[in-house]
Amino acid sequence: MSDLPKFVELHEEGPREGFQIEKKHYPIEQRAALVEAIAEAGVKKIQVGSYVSPRAVPTMADSGDLFKIIKRKEDVRYTLLWLNEKGFQQAYDTPGISLDPKLLFYTTDEFSQRNNNCTAAEMRERQKGWLDAYQAKGLGVESAYIVTAFGCNFEGHVSIKAVTDNVQWILDTFAERDLSLPNIILADTVGWANPQEVKRRIGAVREMIPDARIGMHIHDTRGAGIANFVAAMEMGVDLFEGSVAGLGGCPFAGHGDFNAAGNVCTEDMAFIAQEMGIETGIDLDKLIDAARLAEEIIGRPLNGRVMHSGSLDKFKR
Amino acid sequence: MSDLPKFVELHEEGPREGFQIEKKHYPIEQRAALVEAIAEAGVKKIQVGSYVSPRAVPTMADSGDLFKIIKRKEDVRYTLLWLNEKGFQQAYDTPGISLDPKLLFYTTDEFSQRNNNCTAAEMRERQKGWLDAYQAKGLGVESAYIVTAFGCNFEGHVSIKAVTDNVQWILDTFAERDLSLPNIILADTVGWANPQEVKRRIGAVREMIPDARIGMHIHDTRGAGIANFVAAMEMGVDLFEGSVAGLGGCPFAGHGDFNAAGNVCTEDMAFIAQEMGIETGIDLDKLIDAARLAEEIIGRPLNGRVMHSGSLDKFKR
Repeated sequence: MSDLPKFVELHEEGPREGFQIEKKHYPIEQRAALVEAIAEAGVKKIQVGSYVSPRAVPTMADSGDLFKIIKRKEDVRYTLLWLNEKGFQQAYDTPGISLDPKLLFYTTDEFSQRNNNCTAAEMRERQKGWLDAYQAKGLGVESAYIVTAFGCNFEGHVSIKAVTDNVQWILDTFAERDLSLPNIILADTVGWANPQEVKRRIGAVREMIPDARIGMHIHDTRGAGIANFVAAMEMGVDLFEGSVAGLGGCPFAGHGDFNAAGNVCTEDMAFIAQEMGIETGIDLDKLIDAARLAEEIIGRPLNGRVMHSGSLDKFKR
Repeated sequence: MSDLPKFVELHEEGPREGFQIEKKHYPIEQRAALVEAIAEAGVKKIQVGSYVSPRAVPTMADSGDLFKIIKRKEDVRYTLLWLNEKGFQQAYDTPGISLDPKLLFYTTDEFSQRNNNCTAAEMRERQKGWLDAYQAKGLGVESAYIVTAFGCNFEGHVSIKAVTDNVQWILDTFAERDLSLPNIILADTVGWANPQEVKRRIGAVREMIPDARIGMHIHDTRGAGIANFVAAMEMGVDLFEGSVAGLGGCPFAGHGDFNAAGNVCTEDMAFIAQEMGIETGIDLDKLIDAARLAEEIIGRPLNGRVMHSGSLDKFKR
């Protein structure tokens, strides 16, 4: 376990991922209070909502208003998701938003077709348009996401080559434009990863780009979320995205009335990192308070574990 | 990951651990149906109930009647827990029960005092009485449990020495009596373990007894259950106890109305083992059916993950 990082950065996506899948709309005052509680716990980057089509995601239509009422901390980056130029322009025009531009890459044509109405290769070419748009405004790309990097519900197994081909495209394209490499985020979008595959795929990407920062966007759909988090840390990965209280769910998987679990739980990651002696900069008990607030707002038991049992701090002498 | 076993054995404790903590009593017909569903999925050892004081654990008072109505499979071991001589005699007198005698060891005096009204050292000496009782009936000890092997809610940190001292006592005592060593089960009774400590403690025990079989009894109190399962497999451990659907809870930890999570979820272990190419002998989809039956019986959402999302088999081509 010699590659374990000394510090891991945990980014929060719960305020968007958690509330966007709910049928009910939650008032911006409640969502702002949650964002503030997460920031209070020491999380340095929080996705608060999205500028996407209000017809497609009505629960996020008031994201701009939400952002305005948040009492912001200076050292925290607050982001909003966008998927088209209009959304990007809205974000660009919102003072105080941290833009942190992203690129999105797909590993299978069918998943890309359903999400973007184009093949994975066409989606790659589209990213050049985003690069142009960001460069035109003098913005660097913060992160490149490899979506469904571990498996796809439509095409099944995803080869390591499907992942590394995207990474090679990124390497080539950024070299052509003389841009510095973004963080490479492997996303287990639909919960296919296991610790062995995490190590294999991160190893393959690391070999191609020894100096780039690698991150993971983990879903806990099948209970392997924290195990995958640990496996990634053992490969030196130090950047993760999660949802407080395990907020969110997976619309692609579910049984009867129960939503399948969604994003891996942020405070469960913070807990296990802390127990393994890895710093996160997070005050765990405050993040547990934020998770309990999320549960109170949503109004039903959420998936987080340590929020229901408490940390171990009070037992340690 | 070269020490990964080719096969891991998963034992089921849900029918006891799950139902004993419930306030409500569940009819034996429902519990028998659950035991049968678990056996149908290929689990080879199932703890169906306990012969303990009906005053202390009223929900288990009918364990003998439950056992009688179970349609048993020949290759499955059905066990009942006992904690005193009367319970042992009841089990001994129950035809068809697999006795699988256990010994129990404690790492801290206060946890032992509260559970057994004696110190950890006194508890060790008491195990000689059990050894006598088992030897008198010609029974070997199947497993020796090191309870709270990772931490204690009363005394806090548990040293590795507190674990290995118990193992040394077992080694010495079994050598004196010329008995073959039992399985050594490290139990994370109150959810303190993390993957690093799992590796350290299993490594320390393995070093003392390279040939003994080591197992783990894992609780998922703080969300690290599956990560600890993977860490133990990476140390070559091939014997685990879990609860279908994550049945059960931890009476020592909890927040408000929510019980903290209890035993690690059996089918989530089976899922991740299968995905890592490790055999379990379990038909995952049938075990998911058993987990859904457990949820139907209990009547509220349970903690298992893969039971709510389904396995990946249907997506693989």
